[in-house]
Amino acid sequence: MTEAHSPTTAWRTTRYVGGERVDVEDVLTTEGPVEYRIDGVPIAVLMRTPGRDESLGAGFLITEGIVLGPDEIDSVVIVEGSTAGDRYDVVFAPGVHVDPEQFRRNVYASSSCGVCGKASIDAVLVASRTPPDGPIVSPGFIAELPDRLRAVQDQFDLTGSLHGAALFDPSGELLASAEDVGRHNAVDKVVGEIASIQWPIGEAVLVVSGRIGFEIVQKAAVAGIPIVCGISGASSLAASLGEETGVTVVGFLRGDSFSVYSGGHRIGG
Amino acid sequence: MTEAHSPTTAWRTTRYVGGERVDVEDVLTTEGPVEYRIDGVPIAVLMRTPGRDESLGAGFLITEGIVLGPDEIDSVVIVEGSTAGDRYDVVFAPGVHVDPEQFRRNVYASSSCGVCGKASIDAVLVASRTPPDGPIVSPGFIAELPDRLRAVQDQFDLTGSLHGAALFDPSGELLASAEDVGRHNAVDKVVGEIASIQWPIGEAVLVVSGRIGFEIVQKAAVAGIPIVCGISGASSLAASLGEETGVTVVGFLRGDSFSVYSGGHRIGG
Repeated sequence: MTEAHSPTTAWRTTRYVGGERVDVEDVLTTEGPVEYRIDGVPIAVLMRTPGRDESLGAGFLITEGIVLGPDEIDSVVIVEGSTAGDRYDVVFAPGVHVDPEQFRRNVYASSSCGVCGKASIDAVLVASRTPPDGPIVSPGFIAELPDRLRAVQDQFDLTGSLHGAALFDPSGELLASAEDVGRHNAVDKVVGEIASIQWPIGEAVLVVSGRIGFEIVQKAAVAGIPIVCGISGASSLAASLGEETGVTVVGFLRGDSFSVYSGGHRIGG
Repeated sequence: MTEAHSPTTAWRTTRYVGGERVDVEDVLTTEGPVEYRIDGVPIAVLMRTPGRDESLGAGFLITEGIVLGPDEIDSVVIVEGSTAGDRYDVVFAPGVHVDPEQFRRNVYASSSCGVCGKASIDAVLVASRTPPDGPIVSPGFIAELPDRLRAVQDQFDLTGSLHGAALFDPSGELLASAEDVGRHNAVDKVVGEIASIQWPIGEAVLVVSGRIGFEIVQKAAVAGIPIVCGISGASSLAASLGEETGVTVVGFLRGDSFSVYSGGHRIGG
């Protein structure tokens, strides 16, 4: 099992704690695409944490109604020559036939989950624009973001149960905020609102409740947002994408401490 | 704006606090599908919290790379006759042409998000099986679930940043557990593992970290799991689906208190 197929990934993270800064050997949750095929036709690409991919494939086919039950599936087997270990063929029980085109055609992006829209796992990275070199923000500015986000999450007070996203300029002024059952939707609402006024978005900081997955960094990178902060941690693929696209990815905002996974040059005195 | 298009939904919830039971007027985050069309062809169905659907549509097209920037979009307008208010046409700027089939065909289920695989928002509800009448579990059993889930979340201890799902039998014995960047994936891994041994799954309790959205209840209902518990709250559509399918949906597990949104007959002395 290569590291890409381990459920955790080692990462060199810069931790800020009370104004002090230290590089640490961190452990991130691995996130990566897995493809399932019927008769050689890809029917689903899921962003998942590697491990028990056969169970995931079988469970997905069952709970999405692609098969009527587990007895229709003979096995879920790795595609021969798939050295990466992330392509699987679904083998059906004798007499069971599922037309892959039926699902291939009808499978829509349901939650704007990032790899939606990619024909294969080779095409996961969509074109992203180079973010501006700046802005450079202080550790204190970053540490204040959870409170700033919380202050604009009106609906959270009512239901206690939805995600928030907000975009601030480097002076801390709110540009846009949104709440949604989907974190990615909240980001899209914010981007959709600001993009018509300012494009590419440029000098701005995106903060989201919860974790930072691949799709959040992807959306930020495509929109030209240089800094993305999450209340919780980043996945391995989110951190890697931050590094590749030049986006600053910051997570685990707790009091005066946080973790910088990529683009540390934008955190300054 | 009908309630279905308000960001919050009133719900009659039964609260258990320290063994006491009271019916309350609760407020849930609304979750519902919205469809975006290009030239009349649906290209995406997103499960979202209603509000600013035009911004969501524009942001989705931008961040998914369907358009190169906001200047390619003239407007996102409600489909005439769409009284439900959840179907939108994307109108492009003059000279901009996007082939909807290109995206319709290539848009895969990325995270097993529930409405993936549905050709239209009319088809959101997939066939679910009638769960068994039982089991009946005690409030004390429910209250212990967060600790039981936490005890099997090995990887969470390492990264502090991923979702867990576990399936217990009514005596509290662990049937299966999984961790993943995607909550729905963790559920699919658990279902995929147990389904080959026990189908339909039947007398079992599913517990998930975080919130309960539509897709979690959908997956449970399809697999025949009668009780679904979440550490955080349920969305309106998750609660409604629980009611329609007969699945017991429980949320906000905190100490000795929790909320029952549907199927309260399975919580007994």
